[in-house]
Amino acid sequence: MKRIGMLTSGGDCQALNAAMRGVVKGLSNNVDELEVYGFYDGYKGLIYGKYRLLTAADFSGILTKGGTILGSSRQPFKLMRVPDENGLDKVEAMKQTYYKLNLDCLVILGGNGTQKTANLLREEGLNIIHLPKTIDNDIYGTDVTFGFQSAINIAAEAIDCIHTTAASHNRVFIVEVMGHKVGWLTLYAGIAAGADIILLPEIPYDIDKVTEAIQKRTNAGKGFTILAVAEGAISKEDAQLTKKEYKKKLEKSPYPSVSYEVAERIREKTGTEVRVAVPGHTQRGGSPCPYDRVLCSRLGAAAAQAILEEDYGYMIAMINNKTTRVPLGDVAGKLKTVEPDSQIIKEAKTMGISFGD
Amino acid sequence: MKRIGMLTSGGDCQALNAAMRGVVKGLSNNVDELEVYGFYDGYKGLIYGKYRLLTAADFSGILTKGGTILGSSRQPFKLMRVPDENGLDKVEAMKQTYYKLNLDCLVILGGNGTQKTANLLREEGLNIIHLPKTIDNDIYGTDVTFGFQSAINIAAEAIDCIHTTAASHNRVFIVEVMGHKVGWLTLYAGIAAGADIILLPEIPYDIDKVTEAIQKRTNAGKGFTILAVAEGAISKEDAQLTKKEYKKKLEKSPYPSVSYEVAERIREKTGTEVRVAVPGHTQRGGSPCPYDRVLCSRLGAAAAQAILEEDYGYMIAMINNKTTRVPLGDVAGKLKTVEPDSQIIKEAKTMGISFGD
Amino acid sequence: MKRIGMLTSGGDCQALNAAMRGVVKGLSNNVDELEVYGFYDGYKGLIYGKYRLLTAADFSGILTKGGTILGSSRQPFKLMRVPDENGLDKVEAMKQTYYKLNLDCLVILGGNGTQKTANLLREEGLNIIHLPKTIDNDIYGTDVTFGFQSAINIAAEAIDCIHTTAASHNRVFIVEVMGHKVGWLTLYAGIAAGADIILLPEIPYDIDKVTEAIQKRTNAGKGFTILAVAEGAISKEDAQLTKKEYKKKLEKSPYPSVSYEVAERIREKTGTEVRVAVPGHTQRGGSPCPYDRVLCSRLGAAAAQAILEEDYGYMIAMINNKTTRVPLGDVAGKLKTVEPDSQIIKEAKTMGISFGD
Amino acid sequence: MKRIGMLTSGGDCQALNAAMRGVVKGLSNNVDELEVYGFYDGYKGLIYGKYRLLTAADFSGILTKGGTILGSSRQPFKLMRVPDENGLDKVEAMKQTYYKLNLDCLVILGGNGTQKTANLLREEGLNIIHLPKTIDNDIYGTDVTFGFQSAINIAAEAIDCIHTTAASHNRVFIVEVMGHKVGWLTLYAGIAAGADIILLPEIPYDIDKVTEAIQKRTNAGKGFTILAVAEGAISKEDAQLTKKEYKKKLEKSPYPSVSYEVAERIREKTGTEVRVAVPGHTQRGGSPCPYDRVLCSRLGAAAAQAILEEDYGYMIAMINNKTTRVPLGDVAGKLKTVEPDSQIIKEAKTMGISFGD
Repeated sequence: MKRIGMLTSGGDCQALNAAMRGVVKGLSNNVDELEVYGFYDGYKGLIYGKYRLLTAADFSGILTKGGTILGSSRQPFKLMRVPDENGLDKVEAMKQTYYKLNLDCLVILGGNGTQKTANLLREEGLNIIHLPKTIDNDIYGTDVTFGFQSAINIAAEAIDCIHTTAASHNRVFIVEVMGHKVGWLTLYAGIAAGADIILLPEIPYDIDKVTEAIQKRTNAGKGFTILAVAEGAISKEDAQLTKKEYKKKLEKSPYPSVSYEVAERIREKTGTEVRVAVPGHTQRGGSPCPYDRVLCSRLGAAAAQAILEEDYGYMIAMINNKTTRVPLGDVAGKLKTVEPDSQIIKEAKTMGISFGD
Repeated sequence: MKRIGMLTSGGDCQALNAAMRGVVKGLSNNVDELEVYGFYDGYKGLIYGKYRLLTAADFSGILTKGGTILGSSRQPFKLMRVPDENGLDKVEAMKQTYYKLNLDCLVILGGNGTQKTANLLREEGLNIIHLPKTIDNDIYGTDVTFGFQSAINIAAEAIDCIHTTAASHNRVFIVEVMGHKVGWLTLYAGIAAGADIILLPEIPYDIDKVTEAIQKRTNAGKGFTILAVAEGAISKEDAQLTKKEYKKKLEKSPYPSVSYEVAERIREKTGTEVRVAVPGHTQRGGSPCPYDRVLCSRLGAAAAQAILEEDYGYMIAMINNKTTRVPLGDVAGKLKTVEPDSQIIKEAKTMGISFGD
Repeated sequence: MKRIGMLTSGGDCQALNAAMRGVVKGLSNNVDELEVYGFYDGYKGLIYGKYRLLTAADFSGILTKGGTILGSSRQPFKLMRVPDENGLDKVEAMKQTYYKLNLDCLVILGGNGTQKTANLLREEGLNIIHLPKTIDNDIYGTDVTFGFQSAINIAAEAIDCIHTTAASHNRVFIVEVMGHKVGWLTLYAGIAAGADIILLPEIPYDIDKVTEAIQKRTNAGKGFTILAVAEGAISKEDAQLTKKEYKKKLEKSPYPSVSYEVAERIREKTGTEVRVAVPGHTQRGGSPCPYDRVLCSRLGAAAAQAILEEDYGYMIAMINNKTTRVPLGDVAGKLKTVEPDSQIIKEAKTMGISFGD
Repeated sequence: MKRIGMLTSGGDCQALNAAMRGVVKGLSNNVDELEVYGFYDGYKGLIYGKYRLLTAADFSGILTKGGTILGSSRQPFKLMRVPDENGLDKVEAMKQTYYKLNLDCLVILGGNGTQKTANLLREEGLNIIHLPKTIDNDIYGTDVTFGFQSAINIAAEAIDCIHTTAASHNRVFIVEVMGHKVGWLTLYAGIAAGADIILLPEIPYDIDKVTEAIQKRTNAGKGFTILAVAEGAISKEDAQLTKKEYKKKLEKSPYPSVSYEVAERIREKTGTEVRVAVPGHTQRGGSPCPYDRVLCSRLGAAAAQAILEEDYGYMIAMINNKTTRVPLGDVAGKLKTVEPDSQIIKEAKTMGISFGD
């Protein structure tokens, strides 16, 4: 007999359901009795005791279903220790829910912020297993997160579509790819779809280098240029600002997002009109791709195995294609960013891709 | 022996190459000798004599290829009679190119604007066949245009993706669909993907009806709402303005597009945050879907048949699933819009879809 | 207040769920109270009284879901008047279930066989609405059936995939497309994916014409040839046989399906190895395409409208892009086949596609 | 100045063009002058001096193009030392072509057989770089081969499609997945698409265990079962035979492939009809997925880097997400198979997947 709780927290992504199915399949095939409590809308459900006893039917057919059957919400880590508007101690409330339900373990699916709260609950004595979810691939301690490959597929397909129209009209196009803090998604989608210029948060760009790269293509007889620009792309000048100054600058910006500013600056320098496409939240929606479904099935099964062994306090990571138990305390709060001089960046530059640096 | 010219004009879309392949396959299988001159970048190539003699290799493997192998550009009809910056008479120049190459016929692929110039050239005595291309499906005289179904697929897939994330987070989402003047694409993509509210240029919306529809869903326990909003959606108040006044209003608008304004107005009225996704030009890119490939193969073959019969001056239309020669003079300059009281709109309303009216 | 029954019968296809959702959305938005009884596994559920009262939750999120939430089974029309193994009068049993539940109407989704039984029930006095489902597109009285376009997409994508491998290896490939009696699916998928030779049940093939067509391509320097062959493709000789004789011949055939025989005959005549791909039942699975989702939403809403008007006894058809009530008695038992001298066949031939005739 | 030759050999797969583009982009951005000779149809082109000087235009737009622009053919390694029908010494002929063209290096894209010949040429003194291509993922010394993930996507999508139809009809279905010698593709596609039973060449199956697994599902109220069966799946009894005996048995088999035999054996034991779908060669066709495009861009750039450094004799592998030069002599002739007690197999079993063992 096992009694587990489960929640999905933070921005949703593909394959959350596939991962939960993996855990439950892994457990139900190996214990006599299993009770799975699903908390609604992330930590909110745990804090306020909103949950449902899930049945086998809940997990049937969800391998390919996007979103999360439990719902999600963002509950910032830094507010976890702050009482809610009614004075409720959230951490205490979560512990009470946990103990009241007499859970063996709480399985938490989420990204960096979620992980920090998961670690806090671990420190408070709860049995925790964390599964690394995010389209951003920025979780430290795992080679890859689920959602990442599915999001690459959507972003790359968007760039593919733009490719044919850009080529037909000899235009410069920006496709804005999700990622405020890290550029993994933009980097991979950009390489996958043959972007000519890729701008990442980790590699501040020089607008002159960007226009040079466009000009070089024009000189070579290539009439169009495609830029994959991360939401968090930043110019060299802005990278000199403090975080506070930059935030203020963004708030005052007349542009809905950074891409529009890049577009305008290119237009100013070159006289070329630049069009912007913003696939936006589509990047975290839709069915998970087979890569993510295998990944989540494996992570889920490995999580089940840890629970069966009553070995708690880990993120289940994928390292060198092996599922691995990584102590939550070792990784919580750390971010995995793109190294500007990493092998993949060098390879991209070898192929002639400009990063504007 | 046949000697034909070919050009693609206006905003590009899927299946332009498939249509050209259809024409050329249809001719090459039925004449001893065939010369196909491809004009670059739409009418520009015809005006300035920029073209290339195309070979069989040019048409190999392009059935599934997006964009146009000839390139395209927008050449407004109203400027056709205006000399260019060097004083060149464009219409005369096009006729000279045509006669110099001793063409039997000019095959022109394009939308409404393109069609008007095609008709002008017909009136000037050239042999013209027009193929109705546009993702907007707004060409009068044909049931359907090519590009339309492919664009529906992309827009619907975007809404599908948004669906899972909207449901997971109980959010209100707007997906902006292409279409400044007509709402066919938004209507079909919206119905296909289960949008709850659809705003079209042809049916001015009342913001109160929009928020009522959202509220009705909330009351029914449905935590999320998806709006498919055409680029040219317009409020009842704005629909009272003259075209000039409205254009001025748009220019002064702080919003990058109409969707952002709708989002802001919903937020003001309901306090609910509304997110906007703008797939943009992706909707006219990528591989044509099988529907469009069949459509274009048939239109292309029918165009070839007309050329073989030396029967010119038509748009090749699809009417009741039959390819049909429609006299260009009968349709040029007419727009096919969504009728607010048409059967499909009534059906959508029967299903509970709100048009904000 | 409305009380309706619903069942899906025969081979399943895409968009069955979308169609049922359309009916239910159309009704629930327009009556105070609605009871929907879902019968399991087609007529079987109606005969044996196996059903469930469906709730709104059953119809949530099923617009894009393949298969049928009710299950299906094949119940041959010719056995309907034959008592079952326990002597049960099936028709009487169906009527009793209908009356016991006090239904206003029975909504039946299915193909040709299903339609015949639906008509029988109508003749027996039940209120029937039929929705034309089948990937085969062979239902008389409607321009198109749902499932057809989704199946085209899958079959065409399979041929697309084969295309790249055939071209790389200069091989002759057969892709077997579903369709024992009619060739619509093979015809459309074949044209969509650029098949060079298309063999249909309606156009018996001469193997010498087939090999000539291959040879013609080889002579023209094209190293590969792709054949789209319907499951029911038949040679000119076999077309001379009586149905009985042909059935016997097939039973004795060493080939798992007709395609393998065509492959072998080509190999014998030309010495060329021919590879066969059989996507099989994948063609009726997976998510419905946006085209089918719009079609089903419209048919469903129109069905609801008829029910609201208490106007029964129809197939809801799509004719010239209008939903139309077609009297079941006028169409039941009729098959819509590909006319060998129809416009689309002529267009395909104009493009150089061989039908082996 | 660099002068390189390039060839693609063996069964084609997705992303061959993407990989060649990567090499050429990597070189052309880093040398003053570059000559790329493309040999037609694999080693055949090298043996018989059939090649073409490739230009930048050849590599434009091929990132997403399936197949290989050079063509391919199977040239068995064991025949390489055997003179051809005209007495030509093939190895000597390849060397002569290489020296005549004064190549700096020969870039060879292919699988296991191709690799052996590549190594032979290396031993003969030629400068060789090998890129690991195959949908089978069976090349020793690299974590992953290109084509693998694209093929998984196609096979998994086929199983997904079968899923909806199997569930609707409560049927047992077999999807036959490519892979005669190794089961990677079946394993990954099977897990990705939620197959209940997976049969691999590496894990001989006991038919009684297979039917038990089906029965267990039936007992649990699950009416359908999906088997992913590799082309090379083998029963425990047959695994006892010598290779020769088994080959003979297969030749005499009345079944077109192993799946049909498994289907028949299940039917015999359980009385349940089992349907078989064979996506076949579609699994190696179509556009490469974004994963494979990133992989090939990186491998191509890394190959270019090795050529720039004049460091030859390697397979460019992907190990722990790093491109790595692996000496050809260390890996040629070795096969990477699925270990029956590997972590991923255990995880699959934890989830309740049966391997029939």
